[in-house]
Amino acid sequence: MIDKTAIEEAHKRIKPYIHHTPVMTSKGIDEIAGCSIFFKCENFQNVGAFKARGAMNAALQLSDDQRKKGLATHSSGNHAQAIARAAKILGVKSYIVMPTTTAQIKKKGVAGYGGEIFECEPTLAAREQTLAEVIKKTGASEIHPFNNYDVITGQATAAKELFEDTLALDFVIAPVGGGGLLSGTALAAKYFSPSTQVIAGEPVGSDDAYRAMKSGKIEQAQSQTIADGLLTSLGDKTFPIIRDNVKEVITVTDEEIIAAMRLIWERMKIIVEPSSAVPFAAVLKDKLKFAGKKVGIIFSGGNVDLGKIGKLFS
Amino acid sequence: MIDKTAIEEAHKRIKPYIHHTPVMTSKGIDEIAGCSIFFKCENFQNVGAFKARGAMNAALQLSDDQRKKGLATHSSGNHAQAIARAAKILGVKSYIVMPTTTAQIKKKGVAGYGGEIFECEPTLAAREQTLAEVIKKTGASEIHPFNNYDVITGQATAAKELFEDTLALDFVIAPVGGGGLLSGTALAAKYFSPSTQVIAGEPVGSDDAYRAMKSGKIEQAQSQTIADGLLTSLGDKTFPIIRDNVKEVITVTDEEIIAAMRLIWERMKIIVEPSSAVPFAAVLKDKLKFAGKKVGIIFSGGNVDLGKIGKLFS
Repeated sequence: MIDKTAIEEAHKRIKPYIHHTPVMTSKGIDEIAGCSIFFKCENFQNVGAFKARGAMNAALQLSDDQRKKGLATHSSGNHAQAIARAAKILGVKSYIVMPTTTAQIKKKGVAGYGGEIFECEPTLAAREQTLAEVIKKTGASEIHPFNNYDVITGQATAAKELFEDTLALDFVIAPVGGGGLLSGTALAAKYFSPSTQVIAGEPVGSDDAYRAMKSGKIEQAQSQTIADGLLTSLGDKTFPIIRDNVKEVITVTDEEIIAAMRLIWERMKIIVEPSSAVPFAAVLKDKLKFAGKKVGIIFSGGNVDLGKIGKLFS
Repeated sequence: MIDKTAIEEAHKRIKPYIHHTPVMTSKGIDEIAGCSIFFKCENFQNVGAFKARGAMNAALQLSDDQRKKGLATHSSGNHAQAIARAAKILGVKSYIVMPTTTAQIKKKGVAGYGGEIFECEPTLAAREQTLAEVIKKTGASEIHPFNNYDVITGQATAAKELFEDTLALDFVIAPVGGGGLLSGTALAAKYFSPSTQVIAGEPVGSDDAYRAMKSGKIEQAQSQTIADGLLTSLGDKTFPIIRDNVKEVITVTDEEIIAAMRLIWERMKIIVEPSSAVPFAAVLKDKLKFAGKKVGIIFSGGNVDLGKIGKLFS
């Protein structure tokens, strides 16, 4: 199990390689929301997302022999760039399996860090099979995007910084996809700010965590949402942590996500990706719960395709 | 003439009412530009632009009797909101003359601060005539957007902070429209960082400052550019300061402005308006001049119509 010391040590381990991102506030946003919100800006993190933390922590935990053979993962998103970046920093190779449907800009990001890309059909089966082949051939170590304790421990450092930089938050809200950020946030709250209630924001169109909290078992994600960082189901390592430490999952529609994202862009002048806007959308949906409270929100990332997102605001 | 003490006193005067905005850097941007850039983020300023500084300084310089009768200006942009906000803070009325063509969102901004809006035809003559009538009726004090020494002195505090927060900049670049920000920046460099060369960025489609520097007299702006904060000609108070203290005006096309703006949005995850991207576009256009140098850039503001801007990126 991940304990307090593990998170503290992970934080020391990755500090040279990550940004201590700022916490931003906005009077205009607080007036609209009816509470005081402290936004942890992981959109300003290296690779534009919190994923840099977990990937770096996991990579640094490998033995020299393991590292030499390189890092491998399958990902169509920010984790892919985070692994390629970690490998580049360590001077080793990275092998990234990406579906053929992955946006060109994300492939370019991986290639920019020297990552070798292996394309596959856009199904989980094809991704896992291709990754298995790559690992068999190279001997590289797989670093899973979320179902990995070292990754979870690394992601926990974002909320740890948030708790250090703010005072006595009543709530902290993270978005939930596979649950790496959320489980890390929940553990950080448990150890560093136990009076803070942990809440998750999730898209209605991919509400497997919401259903898992009701049923007590992992549920299948439907993956029908604009929040493209939150398409996956919980894993067997993230689910128990979430079940035991997260108070509630609030679900929001894509319309609510887009409206919340637009408010953030317009009022705060910063770019967050749709997944990042989910927790703020949850606050706006359930205003009574948060009225007058101090609320921490993790902005998970800021990587968007401006050509596509621009159209949403027309 | 505005001296060093005037800028220092203005800074003290307005400090309780403005943000000391952050200076941001980006490794990715520096690699693309081939120099080290320090971005002064006035897009995070109150009202989303540096205009809050000059408006507040000018308003605070009025006598009690003057203030009581309110503040007045004509503006279709960020200065309108800045004046309405200054009046609200001082507990007095503001009267803002705005062309009928002004975007609804800007009118809402002014109204949100309690400003009274007077609509007029979208010509300079109509704006000035309507303003004269409003002032005759109300006795309010006009605060011009740029051709006003108290406004220029207030704008100078942005570059003053930039020089305080960075070390020995080789260049500082501001966009130029009416010249309030540029003349303030030039005076701040003269007094607080005399080894820093001051350069202006200007749209080709409104290049009156570029022509004025050649001809030695104020020239008419053509106002054909997406950088809607830079449509005006220099004033008789801003031009001499610029003529004597600005080394060069670099002009850039709208295509170059949009490309520079997109890079800033994508790489830095922050929203700047087209006018703000003009200095960075100038650096990209004239890379040789800035190669390896330390360059300060003032991001003038971040107020954009997302519905319109989104389409530019498609």
